[in-house]
Amino acid sequence: MTTTTSMLETYPAEIKLGRGRLAATIDVLISCAEACTACADACLSEGSVAGLVKCVRATTDCADICGTTARVLSRNTGYDADTSRALLEACAVTCGSCGDECWARARMHEHCRICAEC
Amino acid sequence: MTTTTSMLETYPAEIKLGRGRLAATIDVLISCAEACTACADACLSEGSVAGLVKCVRATTDCADICGTTARVLSRNTGYDADTSRALLEACAVTCGSCGDECWARARMHEHCRICAEC
Amino acid sequence: MTTTTSMLETYPAEIKLGRGRLAATIDVLISCAEACTACADACLSEGSVAGLVKCVRATTDCADICGTTARVLSRNTGYDADTSRALLEACAVTCGSCGDECWARARMHEHCRICAEC
Amino acid sequence: MTTTTSMLETYPAEIKLGRGRLAATIDVLISCAEACTACADACLSEGSVAGLVKCVRATTDCADICGTTARVLSRNTGYDADTSRALLEACAVTCGSCGDECWARARMHEHCRICAEC
Repeated sequence: MTTTTSMLETYPAEIKLGRGRLAATIDVLISCAEACTACADACLSEGSVAGLVKCVRATTDCADICGTTARVLSRNTGYDADTSRALLEACAVTCGSCGDECWARARMHEHCRICAEC
Repeated sequence: MTTTTSMLETYPAEIKLGRGRLAATIDVLISCAEACTACADACLSEGSVAGLVKCVRATTDCADICGTTARVLSRNTGYDADTSRALLEACAVTCGSCGDECWARARMHEHCRICAEC
Repeated sequence: MTTTTSMLETYPAEIKLGRGRLAATIDVLISCAEACTACADACLSEGSVAGLVKCVRATTDCADICGTTARVLSRNTGYDADTSRALLEACAVTCGSCGDECWARARMHEHCRICAEC
Repeated sequence: MTTTTSMLETYPAEIKLGRGRLAATIDVLISCAEACTACADACLSEGSVAGLVKCVRATTDCADICGTTARVLSRNTGYDADTSRALLEACAVTCGSCGDECWARARMHEHCRICAEC
């Protein structure tokens, strides 16, 4: 059981979403943020970095947005469905763009492959 | 001239958006993030905090999302219009919700009024 | 195997720290940041929030600092030992303060107990 | 008067630090975080990016740490001097390393010069 699940189970008020799915979503976002942070840095250390700058940018944005989305979803006090929905949509768009960028490099760079599979 | 403007002016490649408007947008987002961080904390220090928890949550989310949006807009390498647009839309929704929350308290709490006007 | 470990294993250059210990440290910091974000929000939803504002503040700071420390440790390009050491020291101080705050409430609030044990 | 100053002036409890100096410090940290985010991205867009990866990493770390320090200093509820002091020390070390990195490139890249002067 992850920390996210334990914490959600002890939340002292109603949560309008299923706690199991919510915890799973937060954990995926946290993993994706970490993979993207690491992939941006791994790209920087490749000899071919000049060809990877778009990937560095896409993963850096994706890390920022997934991290923020995970934190927003972790807050249940005064839940605002509009904010969550709009942010999740932005997060999906960003993950799509970043995934395309990483897939295009997945054969050459193992870190891009793992990041794309997140 | 703000630091944001100076930095955008020295960006070494093409920027697909007007640099003046882009800098102004980033600066507004940065100010809003700071106002929201401070408003969340000021609400926590009010004797009436129990009635302000929804405001603490809304401003904390808004600070996170405005901060991330400012950083994404500050990156021009490999610009991806879809990511920027989706994130700006999520940011507008969040600022709307947070602004409503702060306006409702603007008469009682000066920090909520200033935050709402951001 | 966590995403953090997989990503560190594919880093294309030398890492001056043991990869296993580094991954474990990053994962602990990420879990701690999530627990703290959730604990701050759970405290906000307690009826006794007025007595928990110091805990909300401590956990919010701790989430910010652990999140940043995890990202800095996830970057290995151009490693700077002075930055890592100073930030880890600040992180240890913050976790100590936050842990004290959460322990003091651990008997009354399960979310504070789990957060304190992180 | 900056938003930071307005917000600090409306904080409803005692602040153990001078509000003017505190606001100035927060504003400098916010500017520095923005300059570093923009400098990391400008370096990515330089033809000579392969020689700038250490600068990208240093500015990315510095942006993260300055942003977090600004947020921690913006929170006055339940002030903890140990956390603030330790984080400011880590921030000073990071800014020193990042400044050295940017100064070394200040003659060639205007964005590094402006960033170094922050």
